[in-house]
Amino acid sequence: MSFRLAKYVPVLDWGRRYDRDALSNDLIAAVIVTIMLIPQSLAYALLAGLPPEAGIYASIVPIVLYAIFGTSRALAVGPVAVVSLMTAAAVGQVAEAGTMGYALAALTLAFLSGAILLAMGVFRLGFLANFLSHPVIAGFITASGILIAASQLKHVLGIGGGGDTLIEVLESLVSHLGQTNPITLAIGISATAFLFWVRKGLKPRLRALGLGPRMADVLTKAGPVAAVLVTTLLTWGLGLTDRGVSVVGEVPQSLPPLTLPSFSPELLKQLLVPAILISVIGFVESISVAQTLAAKKRQRIDPDQELIGLGAANLGAAFTGGYPVTGGFARSVVNFDAGAETPAAGAFTAVGLAIAAVALTPLVYFLPKATLAATIIVAVLSLVDFSILGKTWKYSRADFFAVAATILLTLGFGVETGVSAGVILSIGLHLYKTSRPHVAEVGLVPGTQHFRNINRHKVETDPKILSLRVDESLYFVNARFLEDLVQDRIAQDCPIRHVVLMCTAVNAIDYSALESLEAINTRLKDLGIGFHLSEVKGPVMDRLHKTHFLDDLNGRVFQSQYDAWRSLTGAPRPVPAPSTVAANA
Amino acid sequence: MSFRLAKYVPVLDWGRRYDRDALSNDLIAAVIVTIMLIPQSLAYALLAGLPPEAGIYASIVPIVLYAIFGTSRALAVGPVAVVSLMTAAAVGQVAEAGTMGYALAALTLAFLSGAILLAMGVFRLGFLANFLSHPVIAGFITASGILIAASQLKHVLGIGGGGDTLIEVLESLVSHLGQTNPITLAIGISATAFLFWVRKGLKPRLRALGLGPRMADVLTKAGPVAAVLVTTLLTWGLGLTDRGVSVVGEVPQSLPPLTLPSFSPELLKQLLVPAILISVIGFVESISVAQTLAAKKRQRIDPDQELIGLGAANLGAAFTGGYPVTGGFARSVVNFDAGAETPAAGAFTAVGLAIAAVALTPLVYFLPKATLAATIIVAVLSLVDFSILGKTWKYSRADFFAVAATILLTLGFGVETGVSAGVILSIGLHLYKTSRPHVAEVGLVPGTQHFRNINRHKVETDPKILSLRVDESLYFVNARFLEDLVQDRIAQDCPIRHVVLMCTAVNAIDYSALESLEAINTRLKDLGIGFHLSEVKGPVMDRLHKTHFLDDLNGRVFQSQYDAWRSLTGAPRPVPAPSTVAANA
Repeated sequence: MSFRLAKYVPVLDWGRRYDRDALSNDLIAAVIVTIMLIPQSLAYALLAGLPPEAGIYASIVPIVLYAIFGTSRALAVGPVAVVSLMTAAAVGQVAEAGTMGYALAALTLAFLSGAILLAMGVFRLGFLANFLSHPVIAGFITASGILIAASQLKHVLGIGGGGDTLIEVLESLVSHLGQTNPITLAIGISATAFLFWVRKGLKPRLRALGLGPRMADVLTKAGPVAAVLVTTLLTWGLGLTDRGVSVVGEVPQSLPPLTLPSFSPELLKQLLVPAILISVIGFVESISVAQTLAAKKRQRIDPDQELIGLGAANLGAAFTGGYPVTGGFARSVVNFDAGAETPAAGAFTAVGLAIAAVALTPLVYFLPKATLAATIIVAVLSLVDFSILGKTWKYSRADFFAVAATILLTLGFGVETGVSAGVILSIGLHLYKTSRPHVAEVGLVPGTQHFRNINRHKVETDPKILSLRVDESLYFVNARFLEDLVQDRIAQDCPIRHVVLMCTAVNAIDYSALESLEAINTRLKDLGIGFHLSEVKGPVMDRLHKTHFLDDLNGRVFQSQYDAWRSLTGAPRPVPAPSTVAANA
Repeated sequence: MSFRLAKYVPVLDWGRRYDRDALSNDLIAAVIVTIMLIPQSLAYALLAGLPPEAGIYASIVPIVLYAIFGTSRALAVGPVAVVSLMTAAAVGQVAEAGTMGYALAALTLAFLSGAILLAMGVFRLGFLANFLSHPVIAGFITASGILIAASQLKHVLGIGGGGDTLIEVLESLVSHLGQTNPITLAIGISATAFLFWVRKGLKPRLRALGLGPRMADVLTKAGPVAAVLVTTLLTWGLGLTDRGVSVVGEVPQSLPPLTLPSFSPELLKQLLVPAILISVIGFVESISVAQTLAAKKRQRIDPDQELIGLGAANLGAAFTGGYPVTGGFARSVVNFDAGAETPAAGAFTAVGLAIAAVALTPLVYFLPKATLAATIIVAVLSLVDFSILGKTWKYSRADFFAVAATILLTLGFGVETGVSAGVILSIGLHLYKTSRPHVAEVGLVPGTQHFRNINRHKVETDPKILSLRVDESLYFVNARFLEDLVQDRIAQDCPIRHVVLMCTAVNAIDYSALESLEAINTRLKDLGIGFHLSEVKGPVMDRLHKTHFLDDLNGRVFQSQYDAWRSLTGAPRPVPAPSTVAANA
């Protein structure tokens, strides 16, 4: 019983072995991450259309709950860019930004998302996340990065507006352009330029000045904090709020409040599909980060337990004034690089943020929104990477098509349409590919027992025998293809007396394919043609033995294609030699 | 150019070689089919909720168009049971039965369905029909048969009512039971009993009386005609219409009228999904019949051209007062058995039906609807076959689950929900299966060059070497599975220095899987572990050569698993022997 509990509550496992060394490493990591998270949390709340404190709250309790239930040692859970954008898109459809209904819908979205993740974890449905192919994710993240950056331009310009698609956002920008606030624009552009320089130019310079790589890294990551400090001081000192610079303003000095999501069936129904998409996207992003970091230390990640950890974190966000969260790449890498050893680092980060929420919030009153927008723009533009288009074009046109469609649809119709279309396209293209599998007509390589494609190799054939090797499992999507293929060949080619299906690459035969094989067998039998199988794998053979197929077969099952050839051509048995039977399971 | 045209208009091909023998065979077949089709067409129109003449009209022009564009020599196109039920369900949602709007919606449905089939044919999308697995189709047909039979009971009882699901139909029957007309019931029950007897008992008796099998068959198929004649005469002679027996009534004496479907965007939008489902179901039913009959004579069916033929037939139905049509099983088999040689038999049938439409319609005035209902009930109950449940249970639980869900959902929520759920479930279960492929850890069978599953065979292994054979193509759905698997084994097992992936069953590697292999390679490299591939197939290797993967690989690609073993264990090279390289394409 205690063993089982520890499986679902990993803290019981690592908690028992926690020691002073781990504690000091975790504490140092927590301090570094806390400093980085304060501006980031405020910025992502702004992106989600929520009050700034929602970003801080969403980083406190969720981190602690993930530390208890999650399996990654270094993952840092909280608001992230793409999920914040998806939240804005989803909640914006049911409520007006800035209203109580908007915040309530965000809590409800976190609640639904948490419930979905938890259910997926309990029912071990983590594999559902695999339906998102890598290129689709890459395309989606790239398009989201562009959408996010575009959506933040209004804060840099100091104007109003909105929109869920690139065209809407740009139209809104153009129509509001006349209201641009020059001082806001100056702050926004300087902050953006500074942050780009920090990211690209500062680190090599610090290294050239003789700083160690780790110190240089930490200073680079502190860039946004510097931008926040400088622009806040300037805005306060020069009284720029009177000149129209929009600032964060009053943020309540409080621990995360106890909140309740809405349980209105109408609202839950409206938010269900967005919640599913947010859950899956969040899970995929989180698990990729967790896997990458765990691999570096030969640690294990349990995907189904990760779902439970993320589910608990989102439920936590729903009841403490937050919004949907997931494991973020940037913060997790900082956490890992700063030396976090256990999830306790996350818990200490939570304490740090709680102190900030109570004590430091008055300090951000004069923080310009333009600065926060600049930190978002610089962060998300690093996600934009069109190289996936070139790579997939070179490697696989189907993947290219899926990624191009995902990017275009995300930009043109918003995040939900984009990611849904990407999933449907990936699955459809995969099914299409397997619906027309590679089939080779094979013949004997002279002097050997090997059979190769007659179009690629010089091989022996016999006009009486048609030997086909299907390079795919047989299942409903390609079952009829095989029927058509055999029928076409038989209709064209009268001397054929035997058809041999070489099954080296057939890993499974489903019921539809079984029926197709039966149909092929019946038709060939009516024409007086033999139908044989060769090199059938163990598990496939086990299954065929449960049916009448082998009894009704108008031919034989040969262990090797060479046996089939010898028997059907009547060739003499050669001197014994290792046979070419494929490896059975 | 003329060659290309003949491809799309097969009549140009067989028409050139048409002779007197073929003509006389086709004429005989046409007479037999025409007699059988008259009651069947009236009955299916009743099932679709349309006036009786719609069934006749739907059999005339569509047959001719299919004869011009279709590739099957024996397929008879017209109204069929399942498509009639689907038409009733779809049109019933947008209009009241018996109104002008209802007939217009049926024309529009035929138009949409024709356009969809035509588009699928032109864009060679016939493979989409493969997404319906055989068990799902079997379950759907069985459930539809039950629904259709239940929906006809009201005509046997002589009462009103309706409903799209089994529960609705039964509830409606029970609530109207008090209105039962005893004479109608007597006619309905006698006709049903007679038709069942004809089907089961008559043929053996005729054979015992010394009739040839073909004559016995034709007489048996004429059973419905006999039932129609007798009950019509009785109803007319005894004046049963005055006693409340519902009859077909006045049918216009006319050739098919020229009609126009509606092009209202609202209606087109409402009917789009039903039209897609009807097209796909109709196509699947039709192509199965066509393939079965063509195979008996070593003829070819071109599935994409069949789409064009069926599309033209449905467009024809839309403009001549019909409703959606497809290739029917019963009528096609009769056509084939009666000796039809070319699609001209269909054209002659059309002439026969046109004569009937002009000259014979007054004769069906007194035909009781109960008789038509009886012919439908007896015809569709032969479609009901629950054995698919037992067969799939024994062979494959995934297939069983898909078929059981299809049956229950079709009965409980109607045809559209049932068939959609069946498709989604089949695809989902297939993806689930391939998302957790069979992976065997393999070792060397002593004294051979073969590698087998260490759990099934006594094999040699080396603690330094982990050899994995994945029995599935690698693609996005299972890419992460492999990452997890390798990571788990490495985390558990410290002495491992080399990981070898044996790719005998890997027919493809998509971009996601490539990235997963890169991730595995990077992680293993960081840990100082070699990563090797063996027995990679030709087409897969061709594709890998387009990338940097092979350059970055922290290990080698071995032609055979045995080469890998020899090289990594440092075993001496044995005396030359045929290698165990898998067949490359």
